[in-house]
Amino acid sequence: MANAPASQVITLSHPLPLDSGQELAHVDIAYETYGALNADKSNAILICHALTGDQYVASTHPITGKPGWWERTVGPGKPIDTDQFHVICANVIGSCMGSTGPASKAEDGMPYAMRFPVITIRDMVRGLVGMLDALEIAQLHAVVGGSMGGMQALSLAANWPERAARVLVIASTARHSAQNIAFHEVGRQAIMADPNWREGNYYADDASPDNGLAVARMAAHITYLSEEGLTEKFGRRLQNRDTKSFGFDADFQVESYLRYQGSGFTQRFDANSYLYITRAMDYFDLAEEHGGRLGDAFKGTSARFCLVSFDSDWLYPTAESRHIVHALNAAGAPVSFVELSAPFGHDSFLLEVPALDRVIKGFLDG
Amino acid sequence: MANAPASQVITLSHPLPLDSGQELAHVDIAYETYGALNADKSNAILICHALTGDQYVASTHPITGKPGWWERTVGPGKPIDTDQFHVICANVIGSCMGSTGPASKAEDGMPYAMRFPVITIRDMVRGLVGMLDALEIAQLHAVVGGSMGGMQALSLAANWPERAARVLVIASTARHSAQNIAFHEVGRQAIMADPNWREGNYYADDASPDNGLAVARMAAHITYLSEEGLTEKFGRRLQNRDTKSFGFDADFQVESYLRYQGSGFTQRFDANSYLYITRAMDYFDLAEEHGGRLGDAFKGTSARFCLVSFDSDWLYPTAESRHIVHALNAAGAPVSFVELSAPFGHDSFLLEVPALDRVIKGFLDG
Repeated sequence: MANAPASQVITLSHPLPLDSGQELAHVDIAYETYGALNADKSNAILICHALTGDQYVASTHPITGKPGWWERTVGPGKPIDTDQFHVICANVIGSCMGSTGPASKAEDGMPYAMRFPVITIRDMVRGLVGMLDALEIAQLHAVVGGSMGGMQALSLAANWPERAARVLVIASTARHSAQNIAFHEVGRQAIMADPNWREGNYYADDASPDNGLAVARMAAHITYLSEEGLTEKFGRRLQNRDTKSFGFDADFQVESYLRYQGSGFTQRFDANSYLYITRAMDYFDLAEEHGGRLGDAFKGTSARFCLVSFDSDWLYPTAESRHIVHALNAAGAPVSFVELSAPFGHDSFLLEVPALDRVIKGFLDG
Repeated sequence: MANAPASQVITLSHPLPLDSGQELAHVDIAYETYGALNADKSNAILICHALTGDQYVASTHPITGKPGWWERTVGPGKPIDTDQFHVICANVIGSCMGSTGPASKAEDGMPYAMRFPVITIRDMVRGLVGMLDALEIAQLHAVVGGSMGGMQALSLAANWPERAARVLVIASTARHSAQNIAFHEVGRQAIMADPNWREGNYYADDASPDNGLAVARMAAHITYLSEEGLTEKFGRRLQNRDTKSFGFDADFQVESYLRYQGSGFTQRFDANSYLYITRAMDYFDLAEEHGGRLGDAFKGTSARFCLVSFDSDWLYPTAESRHIVHALNAAGAPVSFVELSAPFGHDSFLLEVPALDRVIKGFLDG
């Protein structure tokens, strides 16, 4: 953690009301910024992160030491150009990288654990809007997000329409499908089945529910990749051996890769945060929030929208983006939409897709 | 268990050689039969079951009390007509319904547990061929199987080509893909992460690794259904409530359904069997067994083949069946192939698909 300075933290001046009817008394929002804010504060871009993402969009992760999760997209001269824009990325509430979440201390000085209230995507965005208020940024040049970040961008556009002039939504959806919920439920059950979970009260223990969290991550990770991508990357190739072991070691490269993904994840993520954030995603249904018609969610908007999907994304397939585009059309909002061809499945938004770079740059500069 | 008589059991007269180079000293094969065997033993049909299936294809399951898993297909006047055919269905080795598996006693009188050798699909079929030898059935009228049952049918056709005149393969594949392996690995890791698994030595304990096995089943179950099917069946409908609970109960019907599938499964299935059978499926690569060319696997065949896939099956999609058909074409084998349209995903082979009934009946009668 030597090379990565701690994120800036804003403590909201007021309790945060939540969709559940509860409120969070003390809310910290940890964030990173890149590039200079101009004098009239008109060049700010808010990037919203995905389920297991964080504020380290273009700076070294303090735990893993790895580059930021979107360094290929955010930086000087990059598609989101920090020579031109002031980029802000904040850890969502419910997460575990400095913003208030289940691992944070409640008013009694003990970690919330499962006493943390169930939050929604809109609650996360309410926290981000509180941060923008504190930063005195009235309107963003753009809000940008992929996957769960796209849900936040949509929620901001729908509920705080004056706060962003441009809304860029990549590989996302306006509601979680039954299959999406099902995969998340498998992950939650894996965590809750781990005896180290102890109803969420493991923060003072020597052991965390790492095994359950790793299984949850493994199951989810498969949904982030395409069948074709997995075949191309791993096929049926064996891992460090010429013949099958006739045992239960990771014979196949894909097994070894998944185990690595699972165990690596547990070093940087809190199992309770995984429960809360997946729950928020499963609860997300932007139409339901607005009387059942998605078009009505965007009635008040004057923003410009750009939607991007990937042909190999089976988690949030193109039809989900098209559904949003139709709703924006119905609301009379200006929207461009492109389905990009990329072999990497849902994770394409994080990977080398030159056409995505061009779309992002074109939309933000336009 | 009152209404279900115990299956018939054949003990093979010889140790079973295995692909690993090991052998199983004592092999029981538990099986059920339906319909009369004719005098020249020419009307036998062997049905091979899927991963979590068993010999109770058309009779009440002794543990769950539920109807046989293919009662809609097998019986008097049904597509596999027991007025006409003698149907045999045997529990595969490695499983847990009476055939020798990890829960069976080894020579030292203790359960094999993880001392059970890792087996392959071909080993399962070797056991079934041993049963056919004992029953003195030289050639089957047909071998029939869906999913893993289809793998066994293909393996029988490739390795014992004289033993079946017809080979009907439904919703199956000639090799497990990286994605298939990945989902199985998640399930195995879930089981092995359960502290009650205890390296497989739980048979004398009060507790079994039910939590891990339930998570494995839940993850697998999602792959058996289509996204469309899940949406149609459950969508985002809530379970026994009008509003979200803002908690971690099963708010959504799909969560409740998955939990039910997971917990129900643990009552009838052994976790170690799940490890061994998924391993056998992951190892399955019929081309690899035959020098790398799938066509070569079928060089010796004089059987007729019928392949069926379902358009909504993303576990073993149509391309996998087509791959087999091309190999059979290359081998000069007579083959018919149909992709059926059905909304249920991989599980379509077990469900109400009238076109499947017609294909099965037409092929077996032809």
